[in-house]
Amino acid sequence: MILGRVIGTITSTINHPFYEAKKLLIVEKTDAGGEPLADYLIAVDVVDAGVGERVLVLDEGNGGRQIFAAPDAPIRSVVVGIIDGVDEGRGESGEP
Amino acid sequence: MILGRVIGTITSTINHPFYEAKKLLIVEKTDAGGEPLADYLIAVDVVDAGVGERVLVLDEGNGGRQIFAAPDAPIRSVVVGIIDGVDEGRGESGEP
Amino acid sequence: MILGRVIGTITSTINHPFYEAKKLLIVEKTDAGGEPLADYLIAVDVVDAGVGERVLVLDEGNGGRQIFAAPDAPIRSVVVGIIDGVDEGRGESGEP
Amino acid sequence: MILGRVIGTITSTINHPFYEAKKLLIVEKTDAGGEPLADYLIAVDVVDAGVGERVLVLDEGNGGRQIFAAPDAPIRSVVVGIIDGVDEGRGESGEP
Amino acid sequence: MILGRVIGTITSTINHPFYEAKKLLIVEKTDAGGEPLADYLIAVDVVDAGVGERVLVLDEGNGGRQIFAAPDAPIRSVVVGIIDGVDEGRGESGEP
Repeated sequence: MILGRVIGTITSTINHPFYEAKKLLIVEKTDAGGEPLADYLIAVDVVDAGVGERVLVLDEGNGGRQIFAAPDAPIRSVVVGIIDGVDEGRGESGEP
Repeated sequence: MILGRVIGTITSTINHPFYEAKKLLIVEKTDAGGEPLADYLIAVDVVDAGVGERVLVLDEGNGGRQIFAAPDAPIRSVVVGIIDGVDEGRGESGEP
Repeated sequence: MILGRVIGTITSTINHPFYEAKKLLIVEKTDAGGEPLADYLIAVDVVDAGVGERVLVLDEGNGGRQIFAAPDAPIRSVVVGIIDGVDEGRGESGEP
Repeated sequence: MILGRVIGTITSTINHPFYEAKKLLIVEKTDAGGEPLADYLIAVDVVDAGVGERVLVLDEGNGGRQIFAAPDAPIRSVVVGIIDGVDEGRGESGEP
Repeated sequence: MILGRVIGTITSTINHPFYEAKKLLIVEKTDAGGEPLADYLIAVDVVDAGVGERVLVLDEGNGGRQIFAAPDAPIRSVVVGIIDGVDEGRGESGEP
């Protein structure tokens, strides 16, 4: 999994029933400390994450399908959690 | 998934029934704002995308096979949607 | 899938029945225009491609196994087609 | 698999039974000699690794699910072992 | 698949029956001519490769499991062959 921050949403019509009422998030990848890396991915939201929030992204299709219990979902990346805290061995720093 | 822009098509004979009458697109990867990145991929078209259009590409074989409901399709990347809008948290910017 | 050019062959004994009489190609990755990128992969040949030819490579194991209709093939990348033409939106340029 | 060093832990609520009581580690990738590379990943712990320990990470979902014997686990990367020694052909150097 | 050179071995205890008596190799990636690239991977040995030998690595879990005929093996990369020769279109150059 990787860490990232939601920076926007995508509007696109995907002709597959799985995508009805799903939100597609633009997630900027970050390092462990939250600093942006020059990369992003588009992920399906499952935790109702908003722009600016730090999130955990599962970037593997078979695992993503398990999150939705949808073995036929045409997906790769899923925002599976909002990050409540990162402990880099120097104490707890929650950054909502 | 990733964002990209269609920059051309590929003509090649692939000896598998799945590829009869399928269009192979050259998709330049872009950042969230639509700026080209120095990378591309070849994807099967499912939305009749044309050169210049911004698209959403699913880059995972098992997911791609679900889009076509073809469990034996020898594919990896599929253009699954034309982008209608990108909202980077500063309002809606549709860029057809 | 990606585009590449065959630059050589590999001789190696792989102890699996799938590899009997299979040709292993060294494929240099190229951009859409055919310019070499500083990367390569080793792919199983299915179209009898020769050194110098531009090819289309499927870089996903499950898809590759479908090309050979061999669900137990220990492969990842397959040269699935010789490129007959690339149309970058400025007309057709066949580059054999 | 890759080599890395545990540099912290992540606190995040993931709505899937697999993640109850699982520890999520931040693993900094290293080269074979243990020098840090400018990359990391988030992996599920299975060996009770602590911050600072050098570890072996399996970065493939289907393999990771086998480690947990959990075919429905929504995971990609797993810390599968603590490194007891690295022999780079110049003798054994254990670096716990 | 990729080409590499064995540069060492890893000692680590992995709690899964598959890893009993398996050798874990550190493989430095190389280009087609055998020049080292600044990258490596950890692969399970199946050909009894020694330090310094040029090898062929299959970097895909499902394919790797086929090599061992072990559908439940938690692996990703396997050293599947020792390279007997590389023909870069300028004649045969065996480099054991």
